[in-house]
Amino acid sequence: MKKIVLAYSGGLDTSFCVKYLTEQGYEVHALTVDTGGFSAEELAEMRERALALGAASYKSIDVTDDYYRECLRFLVYGNCLRYQTYPMSVSAERMFQAMTTARYAVEIDADGVAHGSTGAGNDQVRFDLAFELSGKDLEIITPIRDLKLSRQEEVDYLAERGLQWPEKKGTYSINAGLWGTSVGGAETLTSHQPLPEDAWPVPVTATEPRKLDIHFRKGQITGFDDQEFVGQVAAIRALEELAAPYGVGRDVHVGDTIIGIKGRVGFAAAAAVLIIKAHHLLEKHTLGKWQLFWKEQLSNWYGMMLHEGQFLDPVMRDVEAFLESSQDTVNGTVHLTLHPHRFTLDGITSDDDLLGAGFGSYGEMNKGWSGDDVRGFTKILSVPGRIRNSVHQQS
Amino acid sequence: MKKIVLAYSGGLDTSFCVKYLTEQGYEVHALTVDTGGFSAEELAEMRERALALGAASYKSIDVTDDYYRECLRFLVYGNCLRYQTYPMSVSAERMFQAMTTARYAVEIDADGVAHGSTGAGNDQVRFDLAFELSGKDLEIITPIRDLKLSRQEEVDYLAERGLQWPEKKGTYSINAGLWGTSVGGAETLTSHQPLPEDAWPVPVTATEPRKLDIHFRKGQITGFDDQEFVGQVAAIRALEELAAPYGVGRDVHVGDTIIGIKGRVGFAAAAAVLIIKAHHLLEKHTLGKWQLFWKEQLSNWYGMMLHEGQFLDPVMRDVEAFLESSQDTVNGTVHLTLHPHRFTLDGITSDDDLLGAGFGSYGEMNKGWSGDDVRGFTKILSVPGRIRNSVHQQS
Amino acid sequence: MKKIVLAYSGGLDTSFCVKYLTEQGYEVHALTVDTGGFSAEELAEMRERALALGAASYKSIDVTDDYYRECLRFLVYGNCLRYQTYPMSVSAERMFQAMTTARYAVEIDADGVAHGSTGAGNDQVRFDLAFELSGKDLEIITPIRDLKLSRQEEVDYLAERGLQWPEKKGTYSINAGLWGTSVGGAETLTSHQPLPEDAWPVPVTATEPRKLDIHFRKGQITGFDDQEFVGQVAAIRALEELAAPYGVGRDVHVGDTIIGIKGRVGFAAAAAVLIIKAHHLLEKHTLGKWQLFWKEQLSNWYGMMLHEGQFLDPVMRDVEAFLESSQDTVNGTVHLTLHPHRFTLDGITSDDDLLGAGFGSYGEMNKGWSGDDVRGFTKILSVPGRIRNSVHQQS
Amino acid sequence: MKKIVLAYSGGLDTSFCVKYLTEQGYEVHALTVDTGGFSAEELAEMRERALALGAASYKSIDVTDDYYRECLRFLVYGNCLRYQTYPMSVSAERMFQAMTTARYAVEIDADGVAHGSTGAGNDQVRFDLAFELSGKDLEIITPIRDLKLSRQEEVDYLAERGLQWPEKKGTYSINAGLWGTSVGGAETLTSHQPLPEDAWPVPVTATEPRKLDIHFRKGQITGFDDQEFVGQVAAIRALEELAAPYGVGRDVHVGDTIIGIKGRVGFAAAAAVLIIKAHHLLEKHTLGKWQLFWKEQLSNWYGMMLHEGQFLDPVMRDVEAFLESSQDTVNGTVHLTLHPHRFTLDGITSDDDLLGAGFGSYGEMNKGWSGDDVRGFTKILSVPGRIRNSVHQQS
Repeated sequence: MKKIVLAYSGGLDTSFCVKYLTEQGYEVHALTVDTGGFSAEELAEMRERALALGAASYKSIDVTDDYYRECLRFLVYGNCLRYQTYPMSVSAERMFQAMTTARYAVEIDADGVAHGSTGAGNDQVRFDLAFELSGKDLEIITPIRDLKLSRQEEVDYLAERGLQWPEKKGTYSINAGLWGTSVGGAETLTSHQPLPEDAWPVPVTATEPRKLDIHFRKGQITGFDDQEFVGQVAAIRALEELAAPYGVGRDVHVGDTIIGIKGRVGFAAAAAVLIIKAHHLLEKHTLGKWQLFWKEQLSNWYGMMLHEGQFLDPVMRDVEAFLESSQDTVNGTVHLTLHPHRFTLDGITSDDDLLGAGFGSYGEMNKGWSGDDVRGFTKILSVPGRIRNSVHQQS
Repeated sequence: MKKIVLAYSGGLDTSFCVKYLTEQGYEVHALTVDTGGFSAEELAEMRERALALGAASYKSIDVTDDYYRECLRFLVYGNCLRYQTYPMSVSAERMFQAMTTARYAVEIDADGVAHGSTGAGNDQVRFDLAFELSGKDLEIITPIRDLKLSRQEEVDYLAERGLQWPEKKGTYSINAGLWGTSVGGAETLTSHQPLPEDAWPVPVTATEPRKLDIHFRKGQITGFDDQEFVGQVAAIRALEELAAPYGVGRDVHVGDTIIGIKGRVGFAAAAAVLIIKAHHLLEKHTLGKWQLFWKEQLSNWYGMMLHEGQFLDPVMRDVEAFLESSQDTVNGTVHLTLHPHRFTLDGITSDDDLLGAGFGSYGEMNKGWSGDDVRGFTKILSVPGRIRNSVHQQS
Repeated sequence: MKKIVLAYSGGLDTSFCVKYLTEQGYEVHALTVDTGGFSAEELAEMRERALALGAASYKSIDVTDDYYRECLRFLVYGNCLRYQTYPMSVSAERMFQAMTTARYAVEIDADGVAHGSTGAGNDQVRFDLAFELSGKDLEIITPIRDLKLSRQEEVDYLAERGLQWPEKKGTYSINAGLWGTSVGGAETLTSHQPLPEDAWPVPVTATEPRKLDIHFRKGQITGFDDQEFVGQVAAIRALEELAAPYGVGRDVHVGDTIIGIKGRVGFAAAAAVLIIKAHHLLEKHTLGKWQLFWKEQLSNWYGMMLHEGQFLDPVMRDVEAFLESSQDTVNGTVHLTLHPHRFTLDGITSDDDLLGAGFGSYGEMNKGWSGDDVRGFTKILSVPGRIRNSVHQQS
Repeated sequence: MKKIVLAYSGGLDTSFCVKYLTEQGYEVHALTVDTGGFSAEELAEMRERALALGAASYKSIDVTDDYYRECLRFLVYGNCLRYQTYPMSVSAERMFQAMTTARYAVEIDADGVAHGSTGAGNDQVRFDLAFELSGKDLEIITPIRDLKLSRQEEVDYLAERGLQWPEKKGTYSINAGLWGTSVGGAETLTSHQPLPEDAWPVPVTATEPRKLDIHFRKGQITGFDDQEFVGQVAAIRALEELAAPYGVGRDVHVGDTIIGIKGRVGFAAAAAVLIIKAHHLLEKHTLGKWQLFWKEQLSNWYGMMLHEGQFLDPVMRDVEAFLESSQDTVNGTVHLTLHPHRFTLDGITSDDDLLGAGFGSYGEMNKGWSGDDVRGFTKILSVPGRIRNSVHQQS
């Protein structure tokens, strides 16, 4: 009897997989990899459900800390927003779930790994890739992709076996994790429709502006206002709770999937967007021009590769080394104001602030150089152009 | 008697220059280069003032159309926001003013050119560079930078000569042009203070959401809602008028000046920001992944070079050729909603939309490929990683 | 009966395909796309052979001019050598052969297209991709990849049908085209062995140094020494003939295949390497620093994409626009010396030469600026560093 | 009496400076920073000469090890050849000499620093920049740049003071250091003339081919053939001695100076070029495609910044972190053959070789994937193009 690990999310697709694969003669070990999106209650329900469906075992592994340290941290360093918009919450967490699943399969000496992704999205590639790179030759089993069943067919299959799938509450497909919640629905299958207010996971209940100070040390959030946290994960959770009712960090991402079609998905990621935008502002004050230039070029790339499931490519470690090296001086506090549906970046306070610095301010006279220095500077800067003018006048 | 052209903005600094340089024995020809920031009334006042101060002649040249065609157009193609924020309104227009001034000086066979910039900002470099590259050996005269006078000393100088400088109305230094208005004040000399509401040139008077459709043809705005325009300049002006009362497109830019200090400046650029953000969304639907990738890398660079007065570097023409080549399919309408202080991008409608396209939607099954194709795809994608695993296990 | 077009190279694999596919019931139209690698005699032989094997028709199309104009030209503009070594002769020509084959299949209203590539190299991907993108839904038929036959099995298959395959003369697999000849053999399957002297297609017979002047106009070769040519193709052929006996432009390329394994292949490409190296030197004299910088970044990319069969990606057209824009001033003559097994770049003569130019020479005093200008220049260049020093001393 | 440190090279310019500045009332402390270019004998002569000219003290500091570890190492990691040609020997060593001079001036509490560069080259900027960034406010004294004296005037000045400057032996200006020797002369002031054979510092005396194995560990040379070395500096010196008589690593660099003019300079850098080319080949076997891609982009930049005296920009540390991170698997031996005036890269042997690796070789069938996998791979790769075809056919 073949022993396999199934990446179990508790949803219809993977629940179907438990039953179906068990019936196909597999010994199914259901694994939920928690990247910060499940409550203890949800995990308990998932265990119960998986076992009821016939799983040989159920386990959940909380990788949230690793996920932050090995991945989200670099997304912050890089101010990574895919196409300047999307914090790549699903991209990042799915990759970690896939990698953890593969590792677990090797650990328990399984013969194969299964996932419940369809054949139309990014997730299948992330799972497949991580599974292929487990270091062991694992069979990869993908019933949903192979059978092309509709949701109704899956429900019917379970019902025939006496397993009642609960009525779906909402009409939106939701995926929650530490770095944000994605929202898909009928609108996101079109190009022209925005998501309606009630599609979002947390309603906008805040009505008044609220000042917010976010503190950073070497590029990482350490707390906000007068709260310090042990570990970034706790800080992110607390910030999300505070900011989500303002409806900030919501948008619709349009992008290129790994399989070449365009995709559109809503996301609500208050903490992620606030942290990234605040971090970016702090960097503008504390990093040099060329650091900012190269960080943009490399981070853009890093985000794309992560999005496409290429987290295990060795170039990613090299980019991370670059990004980490750049964060030494990214210390200080960023001042924001939250408003319903928007926020403003009001300024920063930092010992590493390169603005001001006693060198005279922008637009004011200064001590670090004279007008003649600038005259000399531009004289030299103009040399190539003057040479070009002189050569091309002759020719 | 030396004949010089003075880049005349109508402000205290350049007004002082007219008088001072005339007294120094120069024949001062005052020139105002209009990049869309002056009304006919303002220009008439400026003419009167310049002549009253002793200018040998006064002229204004409207370069707004050239400015759009030769520069702003590419900032739109490139979705150029410096450090993801600032549309570089001043950077771009100052360069065009400087280049036009240099051209005019050559035309009227002047011996020199003068500008009124201080020694502490970007503008002096833009003027100096454009003047150096006029193709003729023009003397560059910069009284404000050389004399290091305070505003009060300038006022006193004029007063001693019977010329009363009007009391300054506001405490904010404002620069208006087609692509936006910059705002400097006591707050922008700090790192931590935002600009107060009354610093902004147009108060937020809109109170209700308003739908807005912006139409694009080959990457350029052609109109909005049911309005079509002859030329982009008219469309931009009309959009600015419509959107400014919503307070969108306002922010504070923190960046690196050409002379190496950090600078901070507020800007209100409703039309510029709406157009760029709408254009970017349209591109996400109509361009390929690698086009989007390289456009970001190159545009980031293009914006920096423009910001630093390097518009005349030949690489800029090459980047423009790239950008122009990419815009063939950037056609369609972008749907937005304006709210007070913010806007949302709701979606697009385009014949060139690559999303949907009958290939099956994101997350749904499709006709263009099978699950086995994806399986093969990821199998091949995993080859380098599997080889690495195999080699490094042995070593 | 299904009508298909077979990309026919005259070799064993595609000869097998003619017979095999005919027997499978296909109407096989053999097509040889000539990118400059076949003599009239060879094409006549190929026609005869194809028809003898049962092809329904045979046709050869000479696309050498298009190949140069649409592809090689840009490889010269970009000084493209994959991993600083390989002129990508096979990469480029295979892509053009594949695209032409697809176009021909559409033209004659075929149901499918076939190629004879194995499952282990780059060519299958180039063919598959071009075939997929023909704009028509063509069946793609790949007997060699699918059947995994050895060469001996193919020979036997033909022999059983009374078709004698000629003894292979050499032990090296050779592919010749306008831009160079590739050489594979037992040695290139290892990492440590060089190709022996007799593996190369043209022996080194030249013994004396020979001066060579190559002339360029807008980045394209127009002739050499006192010879002018109508069209670049003729110039390249003549240069190859002249230079090949010197054994220049030979090397072994090690690189990443599209399918993720590393590959190693010898090449002899005298004309390609001489033209690219000469062109690059000319650019160093005639282009600006930032043009050279971005050309390197983009060309590196362009070469990789071409190598990987992605010639039809729209970003390629955008890069080409950039490259073409940069070549206006790349005019002049490059002086070289050919020696057996090597060449030297001796210098250039150009009206667009930016070196010298009456501005004073490197290391000599000059008229374009003063020592004080440089002092001012470096003073300003040092501003960010001085600010950092001052800020970080305090902190 | 002002105490200054003079960067002393022993040549006419800096010798003049000792005398001249002493006469101007400065207490001149002559410092020679040795980056591997001086013998003990030469240093002894320089000491004697400096003191004879009136220097208050003389000191030489050997920074060769630091120079390798903090700079050359990264040039190897990055395969850095400016414009694909020049190993930047002078660029790198001058920067280290300038930085060491500045540090020494701070150490001995000097009031100023002096260098002997003219106003026409790169070195003045490197010295000025390093001096400005010493962290202390040092006066920068540059007599040669300011006085614009000819060599004859300097000789006469010394002669008038009873100091006979020895007849110059050669007509070529030579600068030697660990990473190569630069050669300037009448020819390099033109664009079209190569350097004659006798301009080069080491004549080509080798006549027979010679096999050479270079060993690398984490990207750094550890030895060659059967010789291991303690430290890379010793290995580089020994390799240079071995290889220089073959005349390899010689060329003429044409490039952009920091001050905007084009410059041309010969160099002989056998060890540097052999190490870089061997290292690059080893990387092609041991690194991933994207590592190679980004290394090229970043190293190109790194070299340019170093060349332009910007070694102290913080982005340089970030790039170094990237480069260092990439070198873990760059282990093995590169096989070369030295010939008079040229060398060949014959292959490599490495436990980290990704070529071969039991996955089947290029062009041969394999175990890691099937033909159907590649079919699926290209099917998916073609998705964006098929969508484009379908959308643009309709429009």
